Amino acid sequence: MSEERPRVDTGKLTRFSTEALEKLGVPKEDAEITARILVACDLRGVESHGVAHLRMFYGNRIRRGLINVTPKPQVFSRAPSTAVMDGDNGLGFVVGYHAMNEAISRAKETGAGFVAARNSTHYGASAYYAMMALEHDMIGFTGTNNIPIVVAPGSSVPALSSNPLAVAIPAGERPPFVIDMATSACAGGKIEIALRTGNGIPEGWVIDREGNPITDPTKRSGAGGGLLPLGSTPALGVYKGFGLSMIIDILSGLLSGSVTSLLKETPPEARGNYSDHFFGALRIDSFVPVADFKKTMDTYINALEALPTVPGVERVTVPGPFEAEIVKERQANGIPLDPKVIDDLKLLAEELGMEYNL
Amino acid sequence: MSEERPRVDTGKLTRFSTEALEKLGVPKEDAEITARILVACDLRGVESHGVAHLRMFYGNRIRRGLINVTPKPQVFSRAPSTAVMDGDNGLGFVVGYHAMNEAISRAKETGAGFVAARNSTHYGASAYYAMMALEHDMIGFTGTNNIPIVVAPGSSVPALSSNPLAVAIPAGERPPFVIDMATSACAGGKIEIALRTGNGIPEGWVIDREGNPITDPTKRSGAGGGLLPLGSTPALGVYKGFGLSMIIDILSGLLSGSVTSLLKETPPEARGNYSDHFFGALRIDSFVPVADFKKTMDTYINALEALPTVPGVERVTVPGPFEAEIVKERQANGIPLDPKVIDDLKLLAEELGMEYNL
Repeated sequence: MSEERPRVDTGKLTRFSTEALEKLGVPKEDAEITARILVACDLRGVESHGVAHLRMFYGNRIRRGLINVTPKPQVFSRAPSTAVMDGDNGLGFVVGYHAMNEAISRAKETGAGFVAARNSTHYGASAYYAMMALEHDMIGFTGTNNIPIVVAPGSSVPALSSNPLAVAIPAGERPPFVIDMATSACAGGKIEIALRTGNGIPEGWVIDREGNPITDPTKRSGAGGGLLPLGSTPALGVYKGFGLSMIIDILSGLLSGSVTSLLKETPPEARGNYSDHFFGALRIDSFVPVADFKKTMDTYINALEALPTVPGVERVTVPGPFEAEIVKERQANGIPLDPKVIDDLKLLAEELGMEYNL
Repeated sequence: MSEERPRVDTGKLTRFSTEALEKLGVPKEDAEITARILVACDLRGVESHGVAHLRMFYGNRIRRGLINVTPKPQVFSRAPSTAVMDGDNGLGFVVGYHAMNEAISRAKETGAGFVAARNSTHYGASAYYAMMALEHDMIGFTGTNNIPIVVAPGSSVPALSSNPLAVAIPAGERPPFVIDMATSACAGGKIEIALRTGNGIPEGWVIDREGNPITDPTKRSGAGGGLLPLGSTPALGVYKGFGLSMIIDILSGLLSGSVTSLLKETPPEARGNYSDHFFGALRIDSFVPVADFKKTMDTYINALEALPTVPGVERVTVPGPFEAEIVKERQANGIPLDPKVIDDLKLLAEELGMEYNL
């Protein structure tokens, strides 16, 4: 399918997105940051969190006044390795970018930097912020909360967001380890895809308001039920996904001086907008020499990929090197865009009085 | 079943375990640390990692010379927030206790402390070390690697240990949030229990060497197959459990200057002995006032427990408060011990020329 979609150039898509954001009132530097993060996501093949969201998700929220396009984020620090950022209701991308840089600069000084951010909005895909640590030879961490869509085990009322965790760890000659995972069994985007394609979904992703499994996503009513935490069932460890989700929510919401998703009073028109995040960085050479670390990372990744496989599996897939292949291919050949996304970007250009030039 | 087992007093069990370890050559202070951690585990109801392991697991390894009972652990630090500990092949409990204290004292200074430990041995249940942060109003983290028993997705060769993650977060009037989770779908101990009781195990825990699910644990051959990472199947997110497991292995093995489980060359007689760990502490008041944080934690835990439940579930179970109830009951009434464990402790007493006085 991806082969038949029109390809657009990465640079052009970034400039188009930047210009659109500027027309929406976002200052140039912040528009560039946001566009770069959105397009980086499409480059990695994570199309659910890239430019597909530009008009409907971020653009419309800006136009409805839900996002402050000229925020004055503030940093409060009470110790050398830690800080809290108040995002002043700005674009989550801009808050996230600066907060992660704050964590990185603290890790430069002390070996470890941790920053929690409140009063922010949806920051897109987590991987980007964790990966910002890589060029500094650091391990990067981030997570975020958002609107409750995930149930606690034994309940069928949404109480947690998909609370993703992303971690990036540098390697040497091999691409870095990068994981960006919802702490629910599946990310919300996968259910949207099933709805679009008309396919069923596996048991273990979603329950209805009585707690029964839903396998036909169209049967999901808005008035109850939700996604299951990673693990899906008590026997397979659903309390682990629940616990991980709580940790992300607490680090993001409570350490930043905000609250967890469950306690947040969000007006219906702002569903999915408000968000808290946390960011961490560990400087590798504050533990061991970087060259040794990276060499062992290469050996480790190679050893995992060389493991014998079960019938039908060609190779063990290591998170990070797998996506790096997609990035390389898309950097060379352009990013394939869904025709619906192209229509949406054309509409955005028209609405903003811009030329559509992709 | 627990009601019919003999109960032993916590203090007596700790003193007995301390004395046994001293007779095995462990210096008094180290014996006390180890005994306290073992018994704390039984107190929390996690009987797989408590005194049941004292004779066969730790005692016999000490007697076979696999554990250095008089180690000289060394701390190397290159930055204010971080350190590496070389455990000198000492008891993992002692290494873990000192390494976590090192992380805590660094967090006192800078807000965050992270310590990776190499050349250590099995450190028991992770929860204890994470919980050491609680009395300092810090969030505690720990994880460890050990012998490979878990497969990578798509392979049936053990490549990862169960690589547990433990996180402890203080609350106010409510008990703290504490989770101690293998990053495999089930902990190895649950399979041992199924073997003892003759029960089957659910699909999603273990595969055989061809990659087929095993539901009869007696059918598991030693020569291949292994536990599945959390998520169990590609559809339910097995790559997430795999990624989490890799993270724990890298933080423990690579940041400490050792290697991951897959790369460790362990002689067969030392199976399950050698281990690397990591420890982290975040000081809450370096982010926000502790009282505010704790109050919101209480509100959060109460809100989760107050969620409407699906039929058959009385209440949502929050990790931490659940185990705290068990601790309270066992502190009052004693720790129930399995008759087989009692026989083993009696044998240990006899072997060491001690009085069995529990």
